[in-house]
Amino acid sequence: MQYFEDIAVGHKQAFGRYHVTREEVIEFASKYDSQPFHLDDEAAAKTHFGRLSASGWHTCAMTMAMLVENLKANQQAGLGSPGVDELRWLKPVYPGDTLRCESEVLEKRRSASRREMGIFKSRMKVFNQNDEPVMTFISTGLIEVRNADAPL
Amino acid sequence: MQYFEDIAVGHKQAFGRYHVTREEVIEFASKYDSQPFHLDDEAAAKTHFGRLSASGWHTCAMTMAMLVENLKANQQAGLGSPGVDELRWLKPVYPGDTLRCESEVLEKRRSASRREMGIFKSRMKVFNQNDEPVMTFISTGLIEVRNADAPL
Repeated sequence: MQYFEDIAVGHKQAFGRYHVTREEVIEFASKYDSQPFHLDDEAAAKTHFGRLSASGWHTCAMTMAMLVENLKANQQAGLGSPGVDELRWLKPVYPGDTLRCESEVLEKRRSASRREMGIFKSRMKVFNQNDEPVMTFISTGLIEVRNADAPL
Repeated sequence: MQYFEDIAVGHKQAFGRYHVTREEVIEFASKYDSQPFHLDDEAAAKTHFGRLSASGWHTCAMTMAMLVENLKANQQAGLGSPGVDELRWLKPVYPGDTLRCESEVLEKRRSASRREMGIFKSRMKVFNQNDEPVMTFISTGLIEVRNADAPL
């Protein structure tokens, strides 16, 4: 189990593999992002996307699925996330794409108000099968401190 | 149809109503965020969430559903979104909650490189039925300019 003390600033990881299917793109969009270009080939052809593409929030969800899968293999004493910054959808994600992730720890610090908790920021990059970045964001993670009595 | 010229900085809107069900929380988490506290009552009871709560990305997706529904009534010549900033999950979203949105246009400007396009930023706030903010973010939207020949 990884604790705050085990988080190394600068540490990079490559992980995940998510095959994007047409069925899933349409299913997600039907529920949560029913803009015509996420549902219909003809409507999509008329936009700058060129063809049917996944909702940006669907790409976030698929990325989370890869993150959670990775955390099963590399367990962390995580305490959730307060949020995400600089979320950017750089390129469309199309049915047939296969996504993967790269992450890098940018910074970490102990919480001043909760001695048992640490905070770290990571840059997440999601690539398609052509190694083109399709999405990036900076996530903030909360994690338990192994030795909460250690000086801040 | 609303164009760039119709976007008014400072304009506020209240919209949306989304009832969060236990079935949907578990279905989304099963696919995209299978951390035990999003799937299982007992596991959730052991965390600071206290009980089963929705994935933060599910809250994003439900918010998008409210946004798209609102855009059907208030159509915009939208050109997609390059991203989101300062996404914050402020409080857990629980099965049984009913969500709603408030948005405010913060700024707008013409694109220097694409005369036919404008860019605007909005602050989105999502509240539960107790008027507690559960999530906020700042979205960037791209939109067609009605009169692309007008000086920048």
